[in-house]
Amino acid sequence: MTITPEILKQIEEQRNSPQTSLRETSPGMEKNLYTLFPILDHGFIRIVDYMGNDSSVVQAARVSYGKGTKKARSDEGLIRYLMRHKHTTPFEMCEIKLHVKLPIFVARQWIRHRTASVNEYSARYSKLEDEFYIPEFENLSAQSGVNRQGRGEILPREEGMRVRDILMHDSQATYENYEKMLSQENQEGLSRELARINLPTNVYTQWYWKVNLLNLLKFIHLRIDPHAQYEIRVYAEKLAEIVADWVPMTHQAFVDYWLEGISLSMQQMELLKRKMNGEEITFETAGLSKREWNEFMQALDMEIP
Amino acid sequence: MTITPEILKQIEEQRNSPQTSLRETSPGMEKNLYTLFPILDHGFIRIVDYMGNDSSVVQAARVSYGKGTKKARSDEGLIRYLMRHKHTTPFEMCEIKLHVKLPIFVARQWIRHRTASVNEYSARYSKLEDEFYIPEFENLSAQSGVNRQGRGEILPREEGMRVRDILMHDSQATYENYEKMLSQENQEGLSRELARINLPTNVYTQWYWKVNLLNLLKFIHLRIDPHAQYEIRVYAEKLAEIVADWVPMTHQAFVDYWLEGISLSMQQMELLKRKMNGEEITFETAGLSKREWNEFMQALDMEIP
Amino acid sequence: MTITPEILKQIEEQRNSPQTSLRETSPGMEKNLYTLFPILDHGFIRIVDYMGNDSSVVQAARVSYGKGTKKARSDEGLIRYLMRHKHTTPFEMCEIKLHVKLPIFVARQWIRHRTASVNEYSARYSKLEDEFYIPEFENLSAQSGVNRQGRGEILPREEGMRVRDILMHDSQATYENYEKMLSQENQEGLSRELARINLPTNVYTQWYWKVNLLNLLKFIHLRIDPHAQYEIRVYAEKLAEIVADWVPMTHQAFVDYWLEGISLSMQQMELLKRKMNGEEITFETAGLSKREWNEFMQALDMEIP
Amino acid sequence: MTITPEILKQIEEQRNSPQTSLRETSPGMEKNLYTLFPILDHGFIRIVDYMGNDSSVVQAARVSYGKGTKKARSDEGLIRYLMRHKHTTPFEMCEIKLHVKLPIFVARQWIRHRTASVNEYSARYSKLEDEFYIPEFENLSAQSGVNRQGRGEILPREEGMRVRDILMHDSQATYENYEKMLSQENQEGLSRELARINLPTNVYTQWYWKVNLLNLLKFIHLRIDPHAQYEIRVYAEKLAEIVADWVPMTHQAFVDYWLEGISLSMQQMELLKRKMNGEEITFETAGLSKREWNEFMQALDMEIP
Repeated sequence: MTITPEILKQIEEQRNSPQTSLRETSPGMEKNLYTLFPILDHGFIRIVDYMGNDSSVVQAARVSYGKGTKKARSDEGLIRYLMRHKHTTPFEMCEIKLHVKLPIFVARQWIRHRTASVNEYSARYSKLEDEFYIPEFENLSAQSGVNRQGRGEILPREEGMRVRDILMHDSQATYENYEKMLSQENQEGLSRELARINLPTNVYTQWYWKVNLLNLLKFIHLRIDPHAQYEIRVYAEKLAEIVADWVPMTHQAFVDYWLEGISLSMQQMELLKRKMNGEEITFETAGLSKREWNEFMQALDMEIP
Repeated sequence: MTITPEILKQIEEQRNSPQTSLRETSPGMEKNLYTLFPILDHGFIRIVDYMGNDSSVVQAARVSYGKGTKKARSDEGLIRYLMRHKHTTPFEMCEIKLHVKLPIFVARQWIRHRTASVNEYSARYSKLEDEFYIPEFENLSAQSGVNRQGRGEILPREEGMRVRDILMHDSQATYENYEKMLSQENQEGLSRELARINLPTNVYTQWYWKVNLLNLLKFIHLRIDPHAQYEIRVYAEKLAEIVADWVPMTHQAFVDYWLEGISLSMQQMELLKRKMNGEEITFETAGLSKREWNEFMQALDMEIP
Repeated sequence: MTITPEILKQIEEQRNSPQTSLRETSPGMEKNLYTLFPILDHGFIRIVDYMGNDSSVVQAARVSYGKGTKKARSDEGLIRYLMRHKHTTPFEMCEIKLHVKLPIFVARQWIRHRTASVNEYSARYSKLEDEFYIPEFENLSAQSGVNRQGRGEILPREEGMRVRDILMHDSQATYENYEKMLSQENQEGLSRELARINLPTNVYTQWYWKVNLLNLLKFIHLRIDPHAQYEIRVYAEKLAEIVADWVPMTHQAFVDYWLEGISLSMQQMELLKRKMNGEEITFETAGLSKREWNEFMQALDMEIP
Repeated sequence: MTITPEILKQIEEQRNSPQTSLRETSPGMEKNLYTLFPILDHGFIRIVDYMGNDSSVVQAARVSYGKGTKKARSDEGLIRYLMRHKHTTPFEMCEIKLHVKLPIFVARQWIRHRTASVNEYSARYSKLEDEFYIPEFENLSAQSGVNRQGRGEILPREEGMRVRDILMHDSQATYENYEKMLSQENQEGLSRELARINLPTNVYTQWYWKVNLLNLLKFIHLRIDPHAQYEIRVYAEKLAEIVADWVPMTHQAFVDYWLEGISLSMQQMELLKRKMNGEEITFETAGLSKREWNEFMQALDMEIP
């Protein structure tokens, strides 16, 4: 991470300049503000600003004049109720702004979350730095045999070395050519907006990303999933930690009802009730597709025969 | 405005509980936070929270590590450049949350601005208060003869009195019936969600409304317009003042380029150039519709013959 | 419903003017196009246009060149998989445009669904018709004692008559005054945008509403719920029928996984597994709030002791 | 463009299977449906579906029962009025769905237009083809000296050859390594989601993109601008042609008022009026920044001294 001493000094300064404000604060966020949380080999998440806390959710749900808080226990009950019944609008009342450094292939998945504000570093305006994501050995996995868009076993060490060598070589080689095309020694330099098209999608970019709490939770829900690509999942995991610090009640309800909750179809509920009545249920008589049956068995921690 | 002493005490408490925070502040907003700004006869705008200031716009546009500020002059130049060229995304980096009390017919226009978060007081859950908007005499205007959706002359005093009497009478009468339908004396009370359908759209409701700076500017732009209905325009005017306090550089650029700026069509620009070259331009040779020609003359402060 | 003979003739003409187009069609929609489906006492839903069918969902999910269809069975499997796993973007690839007539208090709930396009009849520009929603006796219910925002028992006949009398009287009286304020006999007429504020929210308005299939399903999901207000639920029910005609595979998957599916929290799943292992589960040892426990018992068709 | 005979056959079939539908059609779109319009060296735009035409805009603006059309002249006047006064919602009433093939660096700019629906070809699920964008000589320009994010002069032929050689070489080399990493001969193949990170952003991807007419116009407005990068501008230019075929009245109004129109600030309008009154205006007395003054002179076709 090319975090220069100058940058660290700026962050230090920001953390040493407390302001006085009449706004509500979140102690868990204050302790994290401006800090660089490293992700992957050169990436990071840095909280630049935030608005609101758990009581802002309650306050909006009640459209109240004051803090909206009655007592902690009643607030928590309301938050859990809202989350359980997908009354989601009050969760839009908190906002967060992040500075994120991430490889382009991760940025391409991230940007699909449309309800957010983004300002990205412009490679038309400025030169990109020589920073590329090279996976660690333990993250170099073979194509999954069962899931067409997932990973399977970790590659054998030697295979891993071969792959890392290729990635490192091509990152380096394309970056050198990027610089050669830009260079103005003995020739006119190619415009930046064209030269950059030579760089692979493991090159790092950065952006400011601002989103409300509800859409942040949706992002985490989708990207923390075991089926999400590892390289975006690590960002989602850090974001989940940030949410836990920021709005602890909301975070707990989110984990209990959304993250760790299970959705069962009408047919699956029927099977469940039959099973609870002592009936045996089998794939043959269930009327589910094989795939759905397996998902169902998994949800119930039952063996897939 | 049924602002009870208890509510005033809550606001007082909020204004007397400064917090320490590492976040950027806006002095102009701190002085306004939580205060009730009265609008119309029973309405208000109250700022509940905000995020960011002028330097947040600059910081995002530059995707910078620190405050994003170089020096005030350079920041202002950048903000004006962004506004002039409609590079609008950095203006999404500030956020505001308001508590608003407003008549339902105003709320129905307001809600058309979709990119915002809203939690409204529920008339299914709670009883509505006996507060109705009754226009002042100077706002009781006849139907415009030239603009099918606008107002013309102020009604003569006697006419105004007749109209105010009707409005006051019907507000009162329907509210009494609303209460009668809800009442459980000697009968079962009708559900709130049904009883309220008897109330006219000049009854007041309230909501929390959260929006980013860009969409707030779009709201103001559309609703501060002389063609907007007076009753929403007064809210937009107050919001413009709030923006001026919050982000003074952005506000000035907004006024110069958007609010007070003029859009000319290709054809109008051609006419203008011909006029500057000493040519006389007339409606007959201009090729514009009558309506467009009049708008053009108006933009140039020229007499419409 | 003031459906004039002229309007009926226009609809007739539209239904008798088949066009030739290279676009995909949906037979179930063609049979419904332009027809007025009556809802409540004066309202309706009328399909004005649509885009796509079940195979459009499949085609987009596969980003394929042709119709995207392999065989019906495989298409259905894919649609069910997408719905089950909330891979929702392909459902945005179908679109529908409706002409809807509805009371203002229903419109106020409807408009909260932000991801849609709307053009409403302007009561600033034109006069509103004398049409008000008056509930039938069987829909006049008392306030629910258990659910603060719901209905309980149907009112006794006499009570119902009293309520209907009030609603009919006030609708009529306010409309007469609306007309008196607008009238220009012996006085200048008040502007339409002001006169209309005297009308209660059971007056009918109408709009064009355009939405993609995904957001239509979200609308239906939320508004067909037994906790939704009856008067919007009847619109949602009609829309569900329209979806069943339009995209039958998508509709079936929607019913099975979303509408009739159940979400269980982490804690509830644990309880369920304990129960399936023969353990007895009780409220006292469950660790759920009373409200959540009751919801759980209900989901399992078990008696709430 | 790897347009296989099979794909061409599918398109042929689609164009030879006219359907009967009651929906409104647009003759200009029917003639274009399904055809592949080539863009850049391997890209294309292909219209997959559409909804509405010019009269749909009028119909929604009038919230009318029938086609909404009075007579062509009056319709055109209304469309021009709506466009001129930025009454934009009726333009949301038309919809288009495209299949687009484009380099990743173009896709990254394109996706910033958030109000649209997208399904992209998944490089986690399938292998990417060996197709890279290599600019023609006339599009290989040096970095602009005046505009930090633009292009200047075309490179000298020899320079251009050097750049093209680099781009072609690196595209080829990284693709070979992509295949080597995926390959399972004598080793386990790396998962697709990782192998693809080695490919530069000039590799082609493809997606389905669905958007309403208003947001399509905003896209074109922004991306057809001379300051937009050439490689996205050519897509915008083709889209403008498509719009002209689809909704000719809307397109003409769009060109006259938005594309070729000029926005002048309050200060610039004042200067203009002074100039029309015979006063000389100079940079020194204008009170504009140098940059803004130059833009102003350009708008008026006046020489920048």
